[in-house]
Amino acid sequence: MTNQDSATVIHRLCQQRHAALATVATDGAPHVGMVAFAIAPDGSALLLHLSTLAAHTRHLLAEPRVSLLLSEPDHPDVDDVQTLARLTIYGQAQPLPPDDALYADCRSAYLRRFAAAEMRFGFADFVLVRVVVDQARFVGGFAQARTLTQAQLIDLLAQSAH
Amino acid sequence: MTNQDSATVIHRLCQQRHAALATVATDGAPHVGMVAFAIAPDGSALLLHLSTLAAHTRHLLAEPRVSLLLSEPDHPDVDDVQTLARLTIYGQAQPLPPDDALYADCRSAYLRRFAAAEMRFGFADFVLVRVVVDQARFVGGFAQARTLTQAQLIDLLAQSAH
Repeated sequence: MTNQDSATVIHRLCQQRHAALATVATDGAPHVGMVAFAIAPDGSALLLHLSTLAAHTRHLLAEPRVSLLLSEPDHPDVDDVQTLARLTIYGQAQPLPPDDALYADCRSAYLRRFAAAEMRFGFADFVLVRVVVDQARFVGGFAQARTLTQAQLIDLLAQSAH
Repeated sequence: MTNQDSATVIHRLCQQRHAALATVATDGAPHVGMVAFAIAPDGSALLLHLSTLAAHTRHLLAEPRVSLLLSEPDHPDVDDVQTLARLTIYGQAQPLPPDDALYADCRSAYLRRFAAAEMRFGFADFVLVRVVVDQARFVGGFAQARTLTQAQLIDLLAQSAH
């Protein structure tokens, strides 16, 4: 798989609306849940809007290291599920209070993708979270894996954000 | 959502072939990757067949606590992605060496679902892993969540295994 092919697949993965979010509980146990995500226009972060009642939100407020998985949906034409493309992104979660300088732009980017989420911005228990991306691991199929540096990942995300 | 409705949705999620697997690295950072999974016939465990070259495999061999997410695929009819159903399962990973009493049955159950994986059972770097399930959290839609006890989860998984 060429870098151009990888980029095409990663762009497609980034058009998806949900990802699996892994966090660590205070007792050190891993947790994975589903989250909707948007992409910051500059590609530096993924944007989540989470209920503080959810376990993963409590976890990332206490331990900011998180990991997100974007994976190609399964479909009947695929004989071997291990050949499905997927991207694991590592990052640091930063809750954004409404008075943060980045809040308005991040909120706008989130709502461009999820117009239906607007009412939840009025809920006191929801928090906007910026996951500043570090690096990523892309698997384009069986035994076809490559690591993306932070700079490569930001570049690909920025192209996918628009 | 009634318990019967939940059971129907969980059975559908269990028919999927892949899940997101969360593990914890030795430095305490969370990791999430995609794995194919089968279900042990008695519902007590999920079955994975993993390369020891993969990060998540190294993690679970050092720290057996894991979490798996089965989530409903996104589709255009869904206005709000938060309404998609998903199940987070917590468990303990136990690698099964070929001389383990459970190995043959677990291998058979895995291959019933993934016939294409048979050749990988001949690869020295692959390991069959039994994730003994503990409890689970089911989200049937926005603000529709319930915890499943180990007994409830095993019962649902056993029905889905056949």
